[in-house]
Amino acid sequence: MNVLDAIRERHSIRSFTDETVSRETLRDLTECAVLAPTASNVQCWKFIAVTDPDFVRKITLFSPGMSGKPPVILALCTDQSIAESRLGETNSRELATIDVSLAAENIMLRAVEQGLGTCTIKSFNEEAVRAILGLPSHIRLEYLLALGYPAGPGKSPARKAIEEVLYYDTYKE
Amino acid sequence: MNVLDAIRERHSIRSFTDETVSRETLRDLTECAVLAPTASNVQCWKFIAVTDPDFVRKITLFSPGMSGKPPVILALCTDQSIAESRLGETNSRELATIDVSLAAENIMLRAVEQGLGTCTIKSFNEEAVRAILGLPSHIRLEYLLALGYPAGPGKSPARKAIEEVLYYDTYKE
Repeated sequence: MNVLDAIRERHSIRSFTDETVSRETLRDLTECAVLAPTASNVQCWKFIAVTDPDFVRKITLFSPGMSGKPPVILALCTDQSIAESRLGETNSRELATIDVSLAAENIMLRAVEQGLGTCTIKSFNEEAVRAILGLPSHIRLEYLLALGYPAGPGKSPARKAIEEVLYYDTYKE
Repeated sequence: MNVLDAIRERHSIRSFTDETVSRETLRDLTECAVLAPTASNVQCWKFIAVTDPDFVRKITLFSPGMSGKPPVILALCTDQSIAESRLGETNSRELATIDVSLAAENIMLRAVEQGLGTCTIKSFNEEAVRAILGLPSHIRLEYLLALGYPAGPGKSPARKAIEEVLYYDTYKE
């Protein structure tokens, strides 16, 4: 599948089949993730693939943004101690968020190519999900991706006209 | 070009030919950008394609992270007033950064498919570049992308082994 088609066919998927996602596939997605650009090659990203149904159920309970019973929840995390020591305290948190997000889009597009669907989840009880994942204090939980085989076609809400978001040379109100 | 190959062939490009990038291509890249996921469909992203050589030169002067004389600098921005009003003050800034970064990766992968090269630039004099772009206070300058046709092959530094970044179910030190 070419890049343009994958970008066009990526929609937030909120309904999944029961089919599990193999570890081979999870590894493939992660290999794509880590090829994203990363500030000073710091690679402070950490990916936790939650596949144990009991863990998935528990995280879902604490995630109002989650729907459709995904077989996998990918927790996108960053190691803040690596980020701070390599990138400095001022911007490291934001640079880590940028890096993991560039990586997340690689995962989402490669997922489309693999017949998988994803949904980014930013609404969850951080304290509860951190406890379930066993995160130490220096690992920041950035956000979650629901992952699985779509139970039906996805659909994205309409986007603004390009003229509303693209400018040449300078910004004009 | 399939997604996996585009992900593998994307490298930070720091040397560009003199060839200009057409407005049609810049529009195509932006169309890909806005198909990325966006929190609550808020679409607070703003893309400024700087193509005027004098503007490019000025921004480059204030961007120590820039090299290779790109014909285009894409300024990735977010409208913080839209973000705050739609997403709330607490998280809107971070959610906007996530959205524009997911969009940025779409641009970078579609660029590979179009024979273009990119480089993310996070090191620049924010005040100076904001002034050149004419940004009002509610438009946040997130970061820059150098864009153009590569003058030579790119190369990415080695990545950590997957075992160092991928975990199952819970985090383990």
